[in-house]
Amino acid sequence: MIIVMKPNVIEQDIKNVINLVEDHGLKTHLSTGDQITIIGVVGDKSKLSKCNIELMGGVEKIVPVTESYKLANKKFNMNSSIIKVRDVEIGGNKFVIMAGPCAIENEKQIIETAHAIKKSGASILRGGAYKPRTSPYSFQGLEEEGLKYMAKAREETGLPIVCEVTSLKSVETAYKYVDMFQIGARNMQNFYLLKEIGKTNTPVLLKRGLSATIDEWLNAAEYIMSEGNKNVVLCERGIRTFETATRNTLDISAIPIIKHKSHLPIIVDPCHATGKRAYVNPLSKASVAVGADGIMVEVHPNPAVALSDGPQSLPPDEFELLCNELKPFSNLVGKTL
Amino acid sequence: MIIVMKPNVIEQDIKNVINLVEDHGLKTHLSTGDQITIIGVVGDKSKLSKCNIELMGGVEKIVPVTESYKLANKKFNMNSSIIKVRDVEIGGNKFVIMAGPCAIENEKQIIETAHAIKKSGASILRGGAYKPRTSPYSFQGLEEEGLKYMAKAREETGLPIVCEVTSLKSVETAYKYVDMFQIGARNMQNFYLLKEIGKTNTPVLLKRGLSATIDEWLNAAEYIMSEGNKNVVLCERGIRTFETATRNTLDISAIPIIKHKSHLPIIVDPCHATGKRAYVNPLSKASVAVGADGIMVEVHPNPAVALSDGPQSLPPDEFELLCNELKPFSNLVGKTL
Amino acid sequence: MIIVMKPNVIEQDIKNVINLVEDHGLKTHLSTGDQITIIGVVGDKSKLSKCNIELMGGVEKIVPVTESYKLANKKFNMNSSIIKVRDVEIGGNKFVIMAGPCAIENEKQIIETAHAIKKSGASILRGGAYKPRTSPYSFQGLEEEGLKYMAKAREETGLPIVCEVTSLKSVETAYKYVDMFQIGARNMQNFYLLKEIGKTNTPVLLKRGLSATIDEWLNAAEYIMSEGNKNVVLCERGIRTFETATRNTLDISAIPIIKHKSHLPIIVDPCHATGKRAYVNPLSKASVAVGADGIMVEVHPNPAVALSDGPQSLPPDEFELLCNELKPFSNLVGKTL
Amino acid sequence: MIIVMKPNVIEQDIKNVINLVEDHGLKTHLSTGDQITIIGVVGDKSKLSKCNIELMGGVEKIVPVTESYKLANKKFNMNSSIIKVRDVEIGGNKFVIMAGPCAIENEKQIIETAHAIKKSGASILRGGAYKPRTSPYSFQGLEEEGLKYMAKAREETGLPIVCEVTSLKSVETAYKYVDMFQIGARNMQNFYLLKEIGKTNTPVLLKRGLSATIDEWLNAAEYIMSEGNKNVVLCERGIRTFETATRNTLDISAIPIIKHKSHLPIIVDPCHATGKRAYVNPLSKASVAVGADGIMVEVHPNPAVALSDGPQSLPPDEFELLCNELKPFSNLVGKTL
Repeated sequence: MIIVMKPNVIEQDIKNVINLVEDHGLKTHLSTGDQITIIGVVGDKSKLSKCNIELMGGVEKIVPVTESYKLANKKFNMNSSIIKVRDVEIGGNKFVIMAGPCAIENEKQIIETAHAIKKSGASILRGGAYKPRTSPYSFQGLEEEGLKYMAKAREETGLPIVCEVTSLKSVETAYKYVDMFQIGARNMQNFYLLKEIGKTNTPVLLKRGLSATIDEWLNAAEYIMSEGNKNVVLCERGIRTFETATRNTLDISAIPIIKHKSHLPIIVDPCHATGKRAYVNPLSKASVAVGADGIMVEVHPNPAVALSDGPQSLPPDEFELLCNELKPFSNLVGKTL
Repeated sequence: MIIVMKPNVIEQDIKNVINLVEDHGLKTHLSTGDQITIIGVVGDKSKLSKCNIELMGGVEKIVPVTESYKLANKKFNMNSSIIKVRDVEIGGNKFVIMAGPCAIENEKQIIETAHAIKKSGASILRGGAYKPRTSPYSFQGLEEEGLKYMAKAREETGLPIVCEVTSLKSVETAYKYVDMFQIGARNMQNFYLLKEIGKTNTPVLLKRGLSATIDEWLNAAEYIMSEGNKNVVLCERGIRTFETATRNTLDISAIPIIKHKSHLPIIVDPCHATGKRAYVNPLSKASVAVGADGIMVEVHPNPAVALSDGPQSLPPDEFELLCNELKPFSNLVGKTL
Repeated sequence: MIIVMKPNVIEQDIKNVINLVEDHGLKTHLSTGDQITIIGVVGDKSKLSKCNIELMGGVEKIVPVTESYKLANKKFNMNSSIIKVRDVEIGGNKFVIMAGPCAIENEKQIIETAHAIKKSGASILRGGAYKPRTSPYSFQGLEEEGLKYMAKAREETGLPIVCEVTSLKSVETAYKYVDMFQIGARNMQNFYLLKEIGKTNTPVLLKRGLSATIDEWLNAAEYIMSEGNKNVVLCERGIRTFETATRNTLDISAIPIIKHKSHLPIIVDPCHATGKRAYVNPLSKASVAVGADGIMVEVHPNPAVALSDGPQSLPPDEFELLCNELKPFSNLVGKTL
Repeated sequence: MIIVMKPNVIEQDIKNVINLVEDHGLKTHLSTGDQITIIGVVGDKSKLSKCNIELMGGVEKIVPVTESYKLANKKFNMNSSIIKVRDVEIGGNKFVIMAGPCAIENEKQIIETAHAIKKSGASILRGGAYKPRTSPYSFQGLEEEGLKYMAKAREETGLPIVCEVTSLKSVETAYKYVDMFQIGARNMQNFYLLKEIGKTNTPVLLKRGLSATIDEWLNAAEYIMSEGNKNVVLCERGIRTFETATRNTLDISAIPIIKHKSHLPIIVDPCHATGKRAYVNPLSKASVAVGADGIMVEVHPNPAVALSDGPQSLPPDEFELLCNELKPFSNLVGKTL
């Protein structure tokens, strides 16, 4: 942490800051320039969490130099983590494809989809039972009934299942059914929910918030991990920008950045990122090439009658084509698919 | 709703769309131009919620022309709503000031603050018992203990109290203590939580999400109102942009826009919007001048030792000065303070 | 400037950085912590402009602590500047209103507007002769012919005139006619143009770029000032964000920030910021209240037939009402209008 | 174009709008619903460019349904364009790599770089002679001297050269030397400059503005094309968002969107998009995979002493590695490199 003092700061103000910091057991280094004076602070800055140094006389600003997340930080765990969802390993040598409908609509739809995606090469079945929708008048999901259909689809196909949870109540229900919890973009900073799933040992797919910085995202992962659950997989799904040609803007750079800052696996959701089916194929290829550990794709037996996100869902034949086209890219980056 | 067809669309595709729409009991109007063909749809578009017209052959895009929120819409309720928090009316002839510490730290702090803000002219006491913090290692709030101190402060001063809730559990606890629930920016699209407080009759202060459009914000209000609780007050608290000179960017235009689109009252939180104490005073004046119904300001007896948001909190003397300076502006816009 | 070293940096890397910095005549201060090592650099950092320290072994990142603009910086000129446009002082005790049509259309239109705005209380006449338009097929301005009409309007009313320039050629032409150059948002970083007008002594109204940070904006002012022309007035006109309810998002906080960081005057353009006539009145009041030195408003004798920006232009009667309503706000902040 | 009327609009207002539109030679289609009335307008809407229908009585808003660019629009030219820069074809079967230093520093640097990049597989040499820099105190470029070195490098290696131009004066000078003009992000809406290069027949590399929508970008291309110069290549180089972990946010989706909306070729600049050398390699692979026609990469013989953008420049050995690693990706998408 660096404390930048105001120009023309008086001697006493500098002394006060130094005394305060050292009284809390940290060390300081003073640099006095012609234009500016800075005080470097060395040691565990959490000891200063109750001091608002920014408000002390003569202080211009505080410049942090270390990240506040620890467990998610690559600096403290140099090896890439591999997260197991049943027998599927995410973050290892396999490029993992999660696929399925945005919303679970009925038993037939989900079973049919499960068989189709398995055949094409997907390893995990996704499906929404609790749907966060912008308008209260849109379809909100089948809840537990939907989870039962998902469990049945797993029974028939052997595919592990991932479902979004949106409240403690849904965690309690879903816990009995699912192999992986999904935290959606809107709940990325629902810290209460993060802590609750942090107390379980179920793997978690943590989507990036619409306007979350990478730093905030890793801090959200830290909320889960600091409660004991280390099985976190990140999912880039587009951020909100001024551009309206796509639903969101896929931040493809987030993948190498996360690989640089964290040991956690990261996958890409090209459907929510763009909102348009036609862009899912090229963006999936880009995701493989850039080094992601997998993708999550919306597949629906008949997108034209999907209750949610039809325009960004692939029909089974396009999904099969996608999987086939991804294979050689996957091989190029040294992963199986 | 308008359906824009692709250039060179074939006759049969146009017929299919028209048939589908009319089969659902709506009317269509066809406009055929040299370059483009459009189909206007007239009637209750919710009847089409299970059809993904965007995916039909020949369709280029759908252009919505009406808002999806009803109860929050000024078109369906032309009179400005006045929301009562105990005997304090928000949205009427009073410019309402809510003030208090970001986080409740102990009994003495909150009681002292309550007396100070009441003396200066505030009408409602704020204080956080459940604190959503970016890092899990920051102070998380006193929870029920804090609510008890708030209730005691109300007893001593007569000021109604507003507290943030972040989960069903905190709603159940806070329900017994507070006069107004606050939904924070991070939970604006925690739809489960919105529905739960929609089932109570406690007034709600709904903060705008970090990257929520005005449309999404009013839809979030609709979630609460559609469950029966019509007592919603909106709070603009800054949006996320590329500018880093302030913590967020106060979207001051949101006030006249909300006044144009909705009948709900709206207040401004200049502290979270900027993150810097020095800017609270000028932005509060701007808020009065632009037509807001009130402001929410962080006040702490000693910001330098505040456990949360010290840099953006006012000490009592600056708050008193602020209230005094706001009075003549308030009078100019025809409101008492 | 602070150099943050990587965790586990080796001794030799630290030495190399220190040697390089000191070889360029600057001083260093080393702080070695458990987790991190930082090197504070004291002295004129421009001496290091040819060294990419970020690329040296063991370096994690560079944290700048001082601004790169000097002449525009309040730290080096504590007194607020007053810029004179003929006899109108901007930045002093007067709240200055600039008004006129977006585009000059003909002699009658501009003369009529000039008389109307003068009567209502405006001090400076604006009008566009060179129009930057998103599409090449939109009206592009009358060029020199328009400037002649503006000069005639000045002759008749005594109002100084401000016109946008978009190229060296237009500067050379406009120089003979106008009292103040305007640099539009799209040209804020047209550095060639900035330097050219920096060589004149004509006052400049420098609009903020659509996505310019406050820091970049002050650096753009520095381009003009470093060539010799110190007569710069800033104009906040809205920034680009995700919100689509307004054309742009007025960053009202920019006014107190600029007052804090710079000695230059700043005005607000509420018309471009919102794009809607109905919001001009409340945002103008907010601009007075927040401490701006003036506003720039689009006025057209008949907005319904304006060739550019009709929807955000005021007719003369609404403009008169606006001026009358601004007066008491202006008095409250100690300014005449 | 669709005109949406206000709820409760009166008959006469509807008639007025219809009359105005039809008086200009266009046709209308009226749709009257329970909640809303809309008027579809069919025909050449440029005939209405002098009417501000938005301001007419009873009108709520105008919804455009067609794009304003024609020459750049895929709807009017279904075949992908191939742009020739000397004998290098962009947009065809070759994945084109442009490489070279951010700024030309001296003859030796540019000649050395040219040989190195040619050897590794680049087809076009880039180098900046006119540098737009945020601060006026940063290195501004060698201007004509630099262009001479570039020409010499072309003579030695046979590589065509591309250089940024920032003013009419630099266009006039560079015209004699370069094979392709580059318009930088800051000048994307410098319409005067666009028109000037539109009058030449030199190919143009048009970078996307920092906060330009795809629609604005294609309109900028239209400015060049409508003056006669059809040889435009687009370059995605990152947009400005709230994320600060990278210099800008690479909008990778822009590539399939442009391929969908326009026939012009598009390349990617991963260096400016991220600002960090370590991310150039993975983002280049993603660019190939997503379907771009090429990339532009900054290469410097010794980035540590580069006068501009050192931290995002590759040394020759890393560039060679990049080219080698891109080849198999390029083959996968059916392009040679």
